[in-house]
Amino acid sequence: MKLLEERILRDGIVRKGDILKVDGFLNHRIDPDLTSKLGEEFARLYGGQGVTKVLTIEASGIALACFTAFRLQVPMLFAKKSKSANISDDIYKSQVMSYTHNKTVYDIFVSKEYLEEGDRVLIVDDFLAHGEALRGLISLVEQAGATVVGCGVAIEKVYQGGGNDVRKKGYRVESLAKVAAMTDDGKITFAD
Amino acid sequence: MKLLEERILRDGIVRKGDILKVDGFLNHRIDPDLTSKLGEEFARLYGGQGVTKVLTIEASGIALACFTAFRLQVPMLFAKKSKSANISDDIYKSQVMSYTHNKTVYDIFVSKEYLEEGDRVLIVDDFLAHGEALRGLISLVEQAGATVVGCGVAIEKVYQGGGNDVRKKGYRVESLAKVAAMTDDGKITFAD
Repeated sequence: MKLLEERILRDGIVRKGDILKVDGFLNHRIDPDLTSKLGEEFARLYGGQGVTKVLTIEASGIALACFTAFRLQVPMLFAKKSKSANISDDIYKSQVMSYTHNKTVYDIFVSKEYLEEGDRVLIVDDFLAHGEALRGLISLVEQAGATVVGCGVAIEKVYQGGGNDVRKKGYRVESLAKVAAMTDDGKITFAD
Repeated sequence: MKLLEERILRDGIVRKGDILKVDGFLNHRIDPDLTSKLGEEFARLYGGQGVTKVLTIEASGIALACFTAFRLQVPMLFAKKSKSANISDDIYKSQVMSYTHNKTVYDIFVSKEYLEEGDRVLIVDDFLAHGEALRGLISLVEQAGATVVGCGVAIEKVYQGGGNDVRKKGYRVESLAKVAAMTDDGKITFAD
């Protein structure tokens, strides 16, 4: 998606350690116009697929998933990372390793009552690198006996392999910007 | 706001320990149509006040804040609760005690670069009970030398006093549903 690639080139910052900092518009300070357009694009790509629910993971995926769900006119569900008093014990749970948090492994979960066997789920997230979050979210959907219609990701770091790993398992993954390479001096190359 | 009160009466569940469970439409599974309408209402209430930024706290406030910022056509910023590798050390930080997480005290922070002295900030959140989150967010804004235009909250539990405490300090707080009382057998009464 040209719009997102241009924004990454304009406002994205490459940091040492293979970090692409896009928190000025995508996952800390959020540009709602851009995010809404990305959500529209996911809705276009997965329109007509009978999606009944959009699933994401807190916190960075929520904005994108919201606008996607709004366009598709279906509920949005976000997987949580810690348990609060108003969540029941009846949950689907999986584990995710975070590379942006020093490889911490943490639980993610959703309440069973909100993910049903008949659901056709579109998984949305801001970033796809090693594929950890997607695999965790796919596991939640399948524990419920629901169907993964596909995944919609804003930025995929193609060279980290997570996207292709998930695709090889038979899931459809659509990324709106595919980063093929980043150099330490800040040059970003897109795939395709 | 009638729409929200009706939804709380229809789908909200009162749990022992003074818990109002609205995670079926507001803060776990999210109804994007409702959330968008609540955002519209915040934008209407604070329209013409020169708001330059909407600030919330991860994760439950993000959906509401997104739609509010979209309507006001300004960026949205969410305060984070843990530090990841792509955040710089230049942050404004405050502390919040969570009553829904066993009174855990945790840090919340925003990157300094995204909150500027000239900003006129609308703070948005899903719940207001003891006022902990609002006070933490107000502190972040004031550390930046920016101005708090006001606060927009979906559900205020009036009897817990946090809202009036913040109002007494001179801040405008608008709540779309004000819960005056809840009984253990599930009866909810609204103020006004």
